[in-house]
Amino acid sequence: MTAAIIIIGDEILLGQVKDTNSSHIAESLVNVGVRIKKILTIGDNEEAILSALNETSGNYDHIFVTGGLGPTKDDITKHAFLKFFGGELVLDENLLAELKSRFESRGWKFHDSNLGQAEYPDSCEVIPNGRGSAQGMLFSGNNSKYFVMPGVPHEMEGILHGWIIPYLKNEPTDTYLKYISIGTIGISESGLSEIIEPLRPGLGLIEIAYLPGYYGARLRLTAEGIDESEVEERLDLALTVINDQIEKYTYSTNGESLSEVIGNLMREKGLTLSISESCTGGLVQDHITDVPGSSDYYIGGVVSYSNDSKINFLGVKPESIERFGAVSGEVAEEMAKGVRKKMGSDIGLSVTGIAGPGGGTKEKPVGLVYIGYSDKKTSSSNKYLFGGDRMINKKRSAGTALGILWKNLKEAS
Amino acid sequence: MTAAIIIIGDEILLGQVKDTNSSHIAESLVNVGVRIKKILTIGDNEEAILSALNETSGNYDHIFVTGGLGPTKDDITKHAFLKFFGGELVLDENLLAELKSRFESRGWKFHDSNLGQAEYPDSCEVIPNGRGSAQGMLFSGNNSKYFVMPGVPHEMEGILHGWIIPYLKNEPTDTYLKYISIGTIGISESGLSEIIEPLRPGLGLIEIAYLPGYYGARLRLTAEGIDESEVEERLDLALTVINDQIEKYTYSTNGESLSEVIGNLMREKGLTLSISESCTGGLVQDHITDVPGSSDYYIGGVVSYSNDSKINFLGVKPESIERFGAVSGEVAEEMAKGVRKKMGSDIGLSVTGIAGPGGGTKEKPVGLVYIGYSDKKTSSSNKYLFGGDRMINKKRSAGTALGILWKNLKEAS
Repeated sequence: MTAAIIIIGDEILLGQVKDTNSSHIAESLVNVGVRIKKILTIGDNEEAILSALNETSGNYDHIFVTGGLGPTKDDITKHAFLKFFGGELVLDENLLAELKSRFESRGWKFHDSNLGQAEYPDSCEVIPNGRGSAQGMLFSGNNSKYFVMPGVPHEMEGILHGWIIPYLKNEPTDTYLKYISIGTIGISESGLSEIIEPLRPGLGLIEIAYLPGYYGARLRLTAEGIDESEVEERLDLALTVINDQIEKYTYSTNGESLSEVIGNLMREKGLTLSISESCTGGLVQDHITDVPGSSDYYIGGVVSYSNDSKINFLGVKPESIERFGAVSGEVAEEMAKGVRKKMGSDIGLSVTGIAGPGGGTKEKPVGLVYIGYSDKKTSSSNKYLFGGDRMINKKRSAGTALGILWKNLKEAS
Repeated sequence: MTAAIIIIGDEILLGQVKDTNSSHIAESLVNVGVRIKKILTIGDNEEAILSALNETSGNYDHIFVTGGLGPTKDDITKHAFLKFFGGELVLDENLLAELKSRFESRGWKFHDSNLGQAEYPDSCEVIPNGRGSAQGMLFSGNNSKYFVMPGVPHEMEGILHGWIIPYLKNEPTDTYLKYISIGTIGISESGLSEIIEPLRPGLGLIEIAYLPGYYGARLRLTAEGIDESEVEERLDLALTVINDQIEKYTYSTNGESLSEVIGNLMREKGLTLSISESCTGGLVQDHITDVPGSSDYYIGGVVSYSNDSKINFLGVKPESIERFGAVSGEVAEEMAKGVRKKMGSDIGLSVTGIAGPGGGTKEKPVGLVYIGYSDKKTSSSNKYLFGGDRMINKKRSAGTALGILWKNLKEAS
C-alpha cells in the first residue's frame, strides 16, 4: 500500500503560507499503516492539478488532496477533478438549506459566491465537513482513491479524523508500519548518532533517523512487516537497547512534547510553577500553557523586558543589575527566586539574555543567555552562548529553559 | 524561467518535522523573478532522489534541493547526485583542516563520521556554508541547475542568501514577477472577496489570491511581464483601487507583520506598552517581542493564570472576579488598566478567556474571550466567541488582541 499527498495552493508555492497540512496528514496516517512516499505541492491551476492526477493515478493506492475548495474565485480543485473523473455538477438541496441556516445563525449574509459550495460532481462520494461549508470528496478509479479535503487546517483535520481515518481502518491491509519517536534534550543529533550507531548490529531490522530541533534532538525508530505483534516486538527491543544508553537525555518515548512531560511531572509531584522571562518574551510560558489543563500547576509569570519591571515585579536587587548587568547569572537566579516568591509557587524558572540583532557587546554578545532555577531547596543559574539570529535565540533559549526545568523536576520531591 | 524545489527527508514524509525550507526558499526567490512551479517532497533514499532528478532534469531551469547532507548515516543526497551526474568524491584538504579547527575551537571531539563532510564530487561546484560543516553544491546539466543545500534551516538560509540569490541576480532574465502582500485584520477571506471581485474589470492583468490566517486574512496581488517598470505600475494601480475600498482593514502593504506595524506606530508616537494575558499564556507578548528592538517600547507584562496573580500583580478587584468571573469584560478592562499602571506604560492590553478543552460552562463556553485595552484617555473591553480547539483559540485570541491594539494605536496620540 503506497500513498501520496497533493497540496494545492499558489500561496504555498509563493512561500506566503506555510503548509502544515501535509505533516499533519502524514503523521496521522502512519499509525494506521499508510506511509506517504511523495508529497506534490502545486499551483491553483487546472493544468497543474490535471498533471498531478495523471502522475499519481494508478501509481498510488491512496492520494490525499487539500486546497482549492473555498468559495473565492481562485479555488478550482473541484472543477479539475470533474474534468479528470467526468460526471456532472449537481446541486444538493439539503446541503444548500444547511449552508443557508449556518449563515443565518451567525448573522452573515448568504452571498451568491457561496452557492457553489452546495454543488458536487455526481462522480464522487461527498465527505461531510462538520466544521465548514466546503465538503470533502472521494473519487475512485484506476486502482487509486483520492480523498479531497479543504485547505483550512481545522476543517481538513475534522474530515481526516472524523471520516477518512475510520474509512482506512476498515480497509484490509497487508503490512504494518509503526514508529517510535524518542524526544531527547541536552545532546546533539550527531552526539546521539555516535552513541547509537555502534549498537546497530544488535538492534534488528529497524530504520533509525536523527532529527535536529530547537527543543532537543528527536530519534525516530521505524519498523515494517506483515505481522503486527512481530513489528511491535522488534521496535520494543530496539527501544530498550537504545534507551539504556541515552536514558538521561530521554524525556519521552510516546510522542509527548517536553511541555506535556513537564506537565505530567508537575501533577504527579503536586508542584506549582511560575516563570519570569526577558529575552524569550513570553515564549516559554506560551509553551507551558499549550498543554490542556496547565492551569492546574501553572500559576503565572512575568515578562520583564525593562530593568524597572525586574526590580518592581520580581524583587531583583538594583545593585545586582548595576554590578553584574541585567544579563547575568546573578540576575537570572534572583528572577527565578523572585517570581517564585511573588507568585507563591513551588518552582520558579527564569530566562535573561540578548536575543539580538542589537544590544550585544564584546563582553556580552548576541546569543548570550542565562537560565535561572529556584525551588524550596536549591537555586542555580546556567550560562549559554547560542549566537544565532533573534528567532533562533528565542527558540533555543526556550527549549533549553524547558530542558533545565525537566531535569530539575525529575529529581524534585 | 521555471523552477522547482526538492525537499528530501523521511522525517517530513512521516510528518515528524514540518518543512519550513520550501516556503522560505519560494518567498525569497519571487522577488528575484524566480517562480516555483512545483515542490517535490521525497524520502531519504537513492531511488526516490534519482527519480526526482529524472523528473525535473531538463524540465526546470533551476531546482533547489535541501536535506540529506548531514554526517549521520541516513543522509545520502550527495551519493545520489554523484550517481546521477557522475564524477568522483574528492577529499578537500582545506575543508578538512577548517572542519577540524571548528570542532577544536568548540571543544568537540572530531569523530570519523564527520570525515565525509570534507569530501565532494568533482562534478559539482562547492558552495561554501559559513554556518555549518555540510557544504552546498551546484550541479549543472541538461539545461537544469541544481542548487543543493543542507536541510538545517539556519544553514540553508545562509547559503541561499549569501551565495545563491547573488548568483541568480547575475543571470539574465526574460520575465519580471512581482507581488504585493496586503495584510488585513477584522475581515474574513470571503468578506474581502465580496468587496474586491466586483472591482476586477478595473484592475488590469493581475492575479488575486485570498489567504486566510489566524492573524487576519492576507490578500496577494501578483503581476508578471517582460518590462519591470510596467509590471510595477500595473501592481501599483491595482493596489490603489483595492486599498481605497478596504483601507480600514489594511495594516500593511509591504509584507510587514502586524507586530512590526504595531512596533513602528509605537516608535512613531513615542508610546510604551505592557500586556497582561490569561488564556493566551504569553503568546501575545511572544509576538510583540519577535520584533527586533521591541525593548524600545515594550516594558513587559504578566501572564496571570490564577485569580490570585490577577489580584496581586494587576490590582484586579476580588469583587469583580467574584461578581463577573475571571473571564468577563470587567476583569479584562481591570487587567488592562492594572498592567498599564503597575508597569508604568502608556498603553495596557489584556486577554482573558477559556482556551479549552476544559473549563467551559453553558454560560461561558470554550472559546469565549475578552480583550481589554487601556490608555491615558480611554479604556474598553470587547467580547469574542471563537469556539475552536485550544491552539486555535490561543492564536485567534492573540491575533484579535494585536488587531485591537493596532486599531487603537492608529488613533492614539
